[in-house]
Amino acid sequence: MSDAAPEVKVVALGGGHGLHASLSALRRVTADLTAVVTVADDGGSSGRLRRELGVLPPGDLRMALAALCGDDEWGQTWSRVVQHRFRSGGELHGHAVGNLLIVALWELLDDPVQALEWVGRLLGAHGRVLPMAAVPLDIQAEVELDGLVTTVRGQVACALTPGRVQAISLVPPDPPVSPEAVRAIHDADWVVFGPGSWFTSVLPHLKVPELARALCATSARRLVILNLAPQPGETDGFSPQEHLEVLRQHAPTLLVDAVVADTSVTGDPTELEKAVVALGGRLVLADVGASDGSPRHDAPRLAQVLDEIFREKR
Amino acid sequence: MSDAAPEVKVVALGGGHGLHASLSALRRVTADLTAVVTVADDGGSSGRLRRELGVLPPGDLRMALAALCGDDEWGQTWSRVVQHRFRSGGELHGHAVGNLLIVALWELLDDPVQALEWVGRLLGAHGRVLPMAAVPLDIQAEVELDGLVTTVRGQVACALTPGRVQAISLVPPDPPVSPEAVRAIHDADWVVFGPGSWFTSVLPHLKVPELARALCATSARRLVILNLAPQPGETDGFSPQEHLEVLRQHAPTLLVDAVVADTSVTGDPTELEKAVVALGGRLVLADVGASDGSPRHDAPRLAQVLDEIFREKR
Repeated sequence: MSDAAPEVKVVALGGGHGLHASLSALRRVTADLTAVVTVADDGGSSGRLRRELGVLPPGDLRMALAALCGDDEWGQTWSRVVQHRFRSGGELHGHAVGNLLIVALWELLDDPVQALEWVGRLLGAHGRVLPMAAVPLDIQAEVELDGLVTTVRGQVACALTPGRVQAISLVPPDPPVSPEAVRAIHDADWVVFGPGSWFTSVLPHLKVPELARALCATSARRLVILNLAPQPGETDGFSPQEHLEVLRQHAPTLLVDAVVADTSVTGDPTELEKAVVALGGRLVLADVGASDGSPRHDAPRLAQVLDEIFREKR
Repeated sequence: MSDAAPEVKVVALGGGHGLHASLSALRRVTADLTAVVTVADDGGSSGRLRRELGVLPPGDLRMALAALCGDDEWGQTWSRVVQHRFRSGGELHGHAVGNLLIVALWELLDDPVQALEWVGRLLGAHGRVLPMAAVPLDIQAEVELDGLVTTVRGQVACALTPGRVQAISLVPPDPPVSPEAVRAIHDADWVVFGPGSWFTSVLPHLKVPELARALCATSARRLVILNLAPQPGETDGFSPQEHLEVLRQHAPTLLVDAVVADTSVTGDPTELEKAVVALGGRLVLADVGASDGSPRHDAPRLAQVLDEIFREKR
């Protein structure tokens, strides 16, 4: 497909497995692809690295790079290395090799963006991966349980605290961002939100003031890819339209051109369609789920739908 | 120089900084270079990795690969990454990034030699790096102090135990070796011993029975590069000829074609010359030390001397 629309400039926002899914599809659609990735993880290998070495949490960046790795033996092998985790019960247990590699390049080059470019070159990456902010962030969530609202801090705590997340904010509230990320958003033809952990991977970008301004001001069209299922701990019981509602609450002036939802999750699409129209966009219902029925996107199917949407608007 | 003698096949034996020095010179002399590297380290990052993950200690292999890295920005950058050590006081403190990368490839590919080839390709290495054995080794040393001989086990213990090392042996005593190492020794034009920690980096190869047989049986010529200074803890007070004497004791049937010694360390060369002749070779006295007077070899000077020796014998 990339030969038909080689010039579509796409910026994908997110983190974790959700961003991996959107990038796995988008790399089939365009050769001009930039991921702007959350840096708020405080759990696992990433959390240990940010605490031990005072660096950005590298895990979401690593996973985005792996999603973009080359198709040849070189790219595939280094992608496996980068994604490999040590299993020992000892001090290295759980660390992903790519996290260590990214952190080493940060320490050596003292330029997070250039360092990620080096890892991208190692993997033969089909695109660029940029951090959402130049400093580690903490996500703070307002969680409601039995009528009581408490504030929890940290991505792990947000995921583990029982109750319903109502809103998130960031600490620090106005972090510095990389100029490359702002420029990519301004230069894009399309900006893609989601899929992914809604409060901890998709919405945080909108709470970084400089990014939020760029996302509202850009001439790029905006597309939202909805999740295939609510996420336990974060969006238990959230309908698709409630996902869009919290998006609107976190960025009241943001307009959206298209929302992609899988046919399986919408039930009666009338309410969802209303929510999409309220955001200024149109709903695209399509069969984008994995054929085994698991709640993850099928990369070729999602790619085809995105390609069609991008073509219509050109 | 490599254009004048591109076809000289050289195998360099050793470990640590000594092997780094010989490889830094040899890469200027030939494009057909294989390092066969000790895997007996039990200290530092390597020691922790072999204990935590049950792998070969990677440190000496990493250092050899770094010595062979490409001259371009790619090779230089990845070499810096591979040599970079984390400094934190935490669980990663002291680990060299290249050690972690090598170990990850070992775990993924389950073939130590192929994994090292991948790291070599990453670095654009000018040559091949092979482990001396397919299993981690322990060095056992007989150390004499005040007339009493004790046996110490482990490279760290050998280096730290006060007294004079008399002989070393390996645990296990007859480890499996990689067929590639035996083949490289058989196919070589020259096999190079040293410089380096005499008992823990240079002599261990001769205590691996299969390697020792290959080293004695090969039609390759054999060259010894003597250290510029005795090493505290290992060869305190050893004269150059005593270095050759312990070499002879550890491999009584091994003949040597040439011994390179720096002009500064020999004092009266008569005794050294006698020791060289006893091994079947000739002494090459040359100015191969660093110009700042530190006890390390100057790569271009050493390369020139080696090139001349290799040419004479062709």
